[in-house]
Amino acid sequence: MMSKKPIRVALVGASGYTGVEALRLLLTHPHVELTALCAGRRAGHPLAEVAPAMTEIEAPALVRFDADEVAEKADFAMLALPHGTAQHAAADLMARDVRVIDLSADHRFDDPQFYAAVYDTHQRPESLAHTVYGLPELNRERIRDARLVGCPGCYPTSVILGAGPAQRAGLLAQDELIADCKSGVSGAGRNPGAGTHYPETTGGLHAYKTLAHRHAPEMSRNLGGLNVRFVPHLVPMVRGILSTIYLRLRDGVDAATVRATYEAAYGAEYFIQLLAAGVHPDPRHVRGTNRCHIGLFVDGDLLVVQSAIDNLGKGAAGQGIQNLNLMAGLPETAGLTQTALFP
Amino acid sequence: MMSKKPIRVALVGASGYTGVEALRLLLTHPHVELTALCAGRRAGHPLAEVAPAMTEIEAPALVRFDADEVAEKADFAMLALPHGTAQHAAADLMARDVRVIDLSADHRFDDPQFYAAVYDTHQRPESLAHTVYGLPELNRERIRDARLVGCPGCYPTSVILGAGPAQRAGLLAQDELIADCKSGVSGAGRNPGAGTHYPETTGGLHAYKTLAHRHAPEMSRNLGGLNVRFVPHLVPMVRGILSTIYLRLRDGVDAATVRATYEAAYGAEYFIQLLAAGVHPDPRHVRGTNRCHIGLFVDGDLLVVQSAIDNLGKGAAGQGIQNLNLMAGLPETAGLTQTALFP
Amino acid sequence: MMSKKPIRVALVGASGYTGVEALRLLLTHPHVELTALCAGRRAGHPLAEVAPAMTEIEAPALVRFDADEVAEKADFAMLALPHGTAQHAAADLMARDVRVIDLSADHRFDDPQFYAAVYDTHQRPESLAHTVYGLPELNRERIRDARLVGCPGCYPTSVILGAGPAQRAGLLAQDELIADCKSGVSGAGRNPGAGTHYPETTGGLHAYKTLAHRHAPEMSRNLGGLNVRFVPHLVPMVRGILSTIYLRLRDGVDAATVRATYEAAYGAEYFIQLLAAGVHPDPRHVRGTNRCHIGLFVDGDLLVVQSAIDNLGKGAAGQGIQNLNLMAGLPETAGLTQTALFP
Amino acid sequence: MMSKKPIRVALVGASGYTGVEALRLLLTHPHVELTALCAGRRAGHPLAEVAPAMTEIEAPALVRFDADEVAEKADFAMLALPHGTAQHAAADLMARDVRVIDLSADHRFDDPQFYAAVYDTHQRPESLAHTVYGLPELNRERIRDARLVGCPGCYPTSVILGAGPAQRAGLLAQDELIADCKSGVSGAGRNPGAGTHYPETTGGLHAYKTLAHRHAPEMSRNLGGLNVRFVPHLVPMVRGILSTIYLRLRDGVDAATVRATYEAAYGAEYFIQLLAAGVHPDPRHVRGTNRCHIGLFVDGDLLVVQSAIDNLGKGAAGQGIQNLNLMAGLPETAGLTQTALFP
Repeated sequence: MMSKKPIRVALVGASGYTGVEALRLLLTHPHVELTALCAGRRAGHPLAEVAPAMTEIEAPALVRFDADEVAEKADFAMLALPHGTAQHAAADLMARDVRVIDLSADHRFDDPQFYAAVYDTHQRPESLAHTVYGLPELNRERIRDARLVGCPGCYPTSVILGAGPAQRAGLLAQDELIADCKSGVSGAGRNPGAGTHYPETTGGLHAYKTLAHRHAPEMSRNLGGLNVRFVPHLVPMVRGILSTIYLRLRDGVDAATVRATYEAAYGAEYFIQLLAAGVHPDPRHVRGTNRCHIGLFVDGDLLVVQSAIDNLGKGAAGQGIQNLNLMAGLPETAGLTQTALFP
Repeated sequence: MMSKKPIRVALVGASGYTGVEALRLLLTHPHVELTALCAGRRAGHPLAEVAPAMTEIEAPALVRFDADEVAEKADFAMLALPHGTAQHAAADLMARDVRVIDLSADHRFDDPQFYAAVYDTHQRPESLAHTVYGLPELNRERIRDARLVGCPGCYPTSVILGAGPAQRAGLLAQDELIADCKSGVSGAGRNPGAGTHYPETTGGLHAYKTLAHRHAPEMSRNLGGLNVRFVPHLVPMVRGILSTIYLRLRDGVDAATVRATYEAAYGAEYFIQLLAAGVHPDPRHVRGTNRCHIGLFVDGDLLVVQSAIDNLGKGAAGQGIQNLNLMAGLPETAGLTQTALFP
Repeated sequence: MMSKKPIRVALVGASGYTGVEALRLLLTHPHVELTALCAGRRAGHPLAEVAPAMTEIEAPALVRFDADEVAEKADFAMLALPHGTAQHAAADLMARDVRVIDLSADHRFDDPQFYAAVYDTHQRPESLAHTVYGLPELNRERIRDARLVGCPGCYPTSVILGAGPAQRAGLLAQDELIADCKSGVSGAGRNPGAGTHYPETTGGLHAYKTLAHRHAPEMSRNLGGLNVRFVPHLVPMVRGILSTIYLRLRDGVDAATVRATYEAAYGAEYFIQLLAAGVHPDPRHVRGTNRCHIGLFVDGDLLVVQSAIDNLGKGAAGQGIQNLNLMAGLPETAGLTQTALFP
Repeated sequence: MMSKKPIRVALVGASGYTGVEALRLLLTHPHVELTALCAGRRAGHPLAEVAPAMTEIEAPALVRFDADEVAEKADFAMLALPHGTAQHAAADLMARDVRVIDLSADHRFDDPQFYAAVYDTHQRPESLAHTVYGLPELNRERIRDARLVGCPGCYPTSVILGAGPAQRAGLLAQDELIADCKSGVSGAGRNPGAGTHYPETTGGLHAYKTLAHRHAPEMSRNLGGLNVRFVPHLVPMVRGILSTIYLRLRDGVDAATVRATYEAAYGAEYFIQLLAAGVHPDPRHVRGTNRCHIGLFVDGDLLVVQSAIDNLGKGAAGQGIQNLNLMAGLPETAGLTQTALFP
């Protein structure tokens, strides 16, 4: 396998959690040569400052982002930048023929109006004509040839993977779903604040932005326009999302039909595990991986889907690598076969 | 206040978490004299073995339960026994004119058939004619005179307090609700098992008994027969329940109506705090107390109620004390005015 | 007991953890009337912003500190201010005949040179002639009449209580001890930072300021000049300090002598519990209390003392209340008899 | 690299934490074919029951241990069995020419008397003539040719790696050290008990077996007979050990000498990272890896070494793989190059 020349990849943005996770995965990827590592205000600093678990690990030096330099060194760039910033780096790199995997929200929609309604006015709207929504289980073929892939948000990954098969197979009686999602604290990012301060985060949990979080439109757009009633919760764990999704089944749809539908959708998907009847998924069992565990529960007309991912794995960096593999013609699972630590 | 003679109370069952919490509250209650402390297989052992935080604290010795002895020493008995066991102690004590506050599930229903359908055949069904469901905010007046009070389950307390005002005021369009509840691990009791083993409990969360937990019928019975779709989750915290409750509003019912309804219901309730618009409840802020924090969120026809309690406080021992206060003619808040530790 | 007029107390500084804990204790103190609540930049804000567990709790409004106003309303002031700030408030209040309990580091030494060597130049050195080191088990009598009490640091409280009896009784062979201390994260204060960010604090632990923490001189000064080799560690819990203290015994001093020495020292102390032989203290069992649990272990010439407190309780606010009780001639345990939640 | 035929390895004991970790590492090892997986009472069960993170992962079926079958299928066997049991499996396999890596305590000493003094009478003492203590940084050459390797305990790994260079280089003034160690809860194993029950484990910490833990003689034996005063603590984290080791330096030995000594000892060691001056190791940064982070602190005659490992990694299964690599003539780092998740 390693006889092929490795692909040349740049990582732009390495100081946030998503960036560090992407770095971890890229450094151990069997077909990737990490040729550039860009890190804003941490440029010039030792890697261990950004990634304390990487003390004495060999990696490229942290440098400031320069589109020309990156284009010279890399054929692919993975962006782990804040939204608003990523759009400029992406456009500048695409202009230099670098293919871009963006982990930010900037290229999740191909419609500038939609982006503006959810986030803000897009400054490089021309890119949006090229972007593909980077959920491989949904858009695998289009991703292979994409110049630009906008990787899904963590919550949307979890909810779309959980609800998608039922919606696409027409099992639903309503154009609506309820997504009660529980996220680990790393989902709030690396910048410390009162809401992520250890003494005020451990020993409790709470919802936030009830019915008003901007991941809801992203879910809706990729679930055939379903009205998504979304309540995210912050729970005292570091990584992971568990989405408990409530859906109404059409008359005559029973548990067996539901299971058959999901097996048809995911039987061939390496990263999606449909758990046995009665088994409940737990994000601890997919932590550090690109996997998604799904449990199905039916009572009368109510379908409860439970879907567990690692918000930094399948919900961000892992999915980015999966997209990179597709774009580069590599095995889709390359560098992503690990299982979670237990315990 | 202390000029009145204190009431004489026995605690039966002191080795589970509910029992230890009841003990803690009874020992500091300004109007209670704890006259007997019964503890099954821990009888004769030092208190610190059962309650390590109570090293060198003055309390009655742990003795085996004997109905005659308890009846001689106490006018009230609080039972913190497993269900199935509590029904015998309760009947024996009532026969000796002791008034009973039962924290187990044995006297939550006044109908033996219903109990049998949810739990098992009741061995002392004659008691059920006397029992009152011990949710003071619902049944205050009947509790005052009760010989026997069956204290609500922890999840039902949280869901009934959260959904009750909307249901009773006729605000709902459906005869159904979804209760997505998140509980701390103490809710699983004091007996160690794989599901509560530290290394397999921290760092993740999961649902259990999805749509099949026996607290659902108890909720339904105290919410006018609403069909309760109940999914409990175990989260890595010690104490607390957060219930996220999804309800459909009738046409024309808006956020203002909802808030006015809850203010009318709870404005005079000392233990129920309706949080300001936009504020999310967190069980950490009611930990160790008998309080319930409620948040209200409306979007179109969807009402999301979030209700936070301490499963061992308002969800068990605290509520037991509140019932005791009512039964004994004491101020309802006696011994229950503390606020949670912060942080 | 309540027939006496309550004492009038002001709390100055209510937005840090120590301040909120002091507030919690003062509000439920049976002999205290909290007459003023001063809170810097939070003045004018609702209390729940500062103390989310105190939603709808009755308390004085948060106001800016003004020495004249405080002097008018209160006979005692408890200061929960940063060091450097507290010294001004203390001096201004003493000038107006208010007796001061300072929870900061500003009045822990009666020697300005010593303070300067450990912290910084003292701006109000005249106060230091009046200050008493507020460890009641050491200085009870002097505290009763003090105009100004400087409450000990959290680590020093734990280490001095643990090592003091052996040192004062002359059991030690060396003029040195090793204090390996483990603190919960609330000890780092309420300001969020990378070192207290939930995702980087849970799941690990580490020492900090090894052999270079400024609580060491404070310990030494109150342990007869012993050379204190102090290594503090931050562990993933919210509250609590466990100090493991290593001491060398003089020839001929055995376990029985050690235990007898500690029993003599602490037998009459309400807040200090000497655990039975072989029992290990755990700060979870003193959380939220003013208690200290001590375990003693001897092997040959090595004495290991383990001492557990709540850093915000006996290590700060609780001890402040104990000092207040002494100064006001109240029962020393007033308002401090609670035991820890279990679990 | 993969052109070589993979080595054939059996894993005996897969239901404890050490076994599951060994399984995880063996399944992704680039040069290993896992040919047998033996699991006692879990034989015949699905793998996901033992290792919930391995749902739908390809692995050999769980079978009962049979020495003949293992000998037929494998050239190496890794034992993750309780001590007392492992000695029989080891002897039976060696008799069939299988080379054995034992993760239990049964072959850590080559002296049956010593084993008996610390554990119990050894039932297969003839094996002890062949055993090598499996700490590669100490015994690398002897491990290469060993028929039987007894892998070190988790605490001893951490303390011997931390103190060994100073001891072997003759820097110490005393024949003694203090090891104040802090372990995650997985170190207590997979069997649930009161001491590892989530509600009684989180939110606190405590020492156990103070000065009486049987890992102390193992440390001493591999540190030139130093008297090891060992106090282990259980802290609320899942994996990891941080050892804070207190050593007395000979006259004239200063910080520079110490650092030079450790650099000489570990400069070429892939798995040992000597942290920069002033940096404190944290087991979270080596979690899931075979690495050891070491920090050095000197004040006068006191050397404080802090050493962090993953108790299930370098402290157990990871070290087992490292030994396997050495015995099989593979690159010592094969299958062990991952870094810890962050965060």
